[in-house]
Amino acid sequence: MTAGRFIALEGGEGAGKSTQARLLAEALRERGLDVVITREPGGTPGAEAIRSLLLHGVEGDEGVSWNPCAEALLFAAARSDHVHRLIRPALATGAWVVCDRYLDSSRAYQGGGGGLSEDDITVLHRIGSDGLLPDLTLLVEVTPEIAVERLARRDVDGTDRIGSRDSAYHARVARAFSAFAEAEPARFARIDGNGDPAATHALVLAALEPLLP
Amino acid sequence: MTAGRFIALEGGEGAGKSTQARLLAEALRERGLDVVITREPGGTPGAEAIRSLLLHGVEGDEGVSWNPCAEALLFAAARSDHVHRLIRPALATGAWVVCDRYLDSSRAYQGGGGGLSEDDITVLHRIGSDGLLPDLTLLVEVTPEIAVERLARRDVDGTDRIGSRDSAYHARVARAFSAFAEAEPARFARIDGNGDPAATHALVLAALEPLLP
Repeated sequence: MTAGRFIALEGGEGAGKSTQARLLAEALRERGLDVVITREPGGTPGAEAIRSLLLHGVEGDEGVSWNPCAEALLFAAARSDHVHRLIRPALATGAWVVCDRYLDSSRAYQGGGGGLSEDDITVLHRIGSDGLLPDLTLLVEVTPEIAVERLARRDVDGTDRIGSRDSAYHARVARAFSAFAEAEPARFARIDGNGDPAATHALVLAALEPLLP
Repeated sequence: MTAGRFIALEGGEGAGKSTQARLLAEALRERGLDVVITREPGGTPGAEAIRSLLLHGVEGDEGVSWNPCAEALLFAAARSDHVHRLIRPALATGAWVVCDRYLDSSRAYQGGGGGLSEDDITVLHRIGSDGLLPDLTLLVEVTPEIAVERLARRDVDGTDRIGSRDSAYHARVARAFSAFAEAEPARFARIDGNGDPAATHALVLAALEPLLP
């Protein structure tokens, strides 16, 4: 049995992370690897239930948003369930785990964009998930123009509270992601996501080459 | 306008906290005070939705419990919503807030009984609720025999994951509460809850006398 690897895809809205996660999972399976593809917030029934509270509010109170502290705690709780019940068990069987968003999304959205300190996000991750980090984080980056164009083509659900935030918020988030990759270059691979999906996929595979068995 | 006061009732299952919270709220209203009676986990629509996840699990996965870390994060998220949207605003209007369970229940159940460190519970409370503490915490204490007798008389819902835990767990929780009161005597009033509700209520009012306007 080869060792399982944990790969996260990060980036702002409209960067193409979900498409790249799917293409990557297919390519790894073609190489004979056991692959679990998952996403955050979500990935387990418990975490998906928390995702629903985060994105759509609660019955009888759909119009009111969570305060930034409650939001960060809910994201950390969802991640804790996801790590304990899906990611760690899958890695233990030797599977590769491909995850659409992980800790750096919390850092960018609840930290950089939302008001919590970096230290507090890190503390929540230590308490909830014993600080588990991916073997490699693929940061998919696109220009603001490409992101806006792709989001316009999507039928964005107006009740999705994070996707529907304003462009200044998304610009802050993109700057936060870039800063993370600059601060920890060994943990990130920066992927130019401006091309078509196949071109971006080739860049993803090239970045992963050193980890492949 | 007199200043609002924040009073929490704590203790193990079957101690009579909910009855005493109701009697206390009535007595305070009779004195002309504006009173908000609430409970944890819960108290706001968001926190009640989290309470439901905590106590009853999620659709399609009712039989599986949360890991202790996810559980502690969910309790902290529920408290954050409760503090931001109900407790602090009520206190700001000069109301008295009577709350059935608060932080010390997290310390006793997720800390003493559940496996998280005391420091981590405190950190979650700082991040979620800016560390807000009650003006006075009434610890209602009963003998194990009285607690068991009262719980047997209740029609305990078998799907309530916390209420249905074993007696060793409840004994650990009771010891944890006692230790908190011994460590911080100025923050707690210990109430003998072994008598009938009226007798216990008289003890509660006596303990609150110094705070009454």
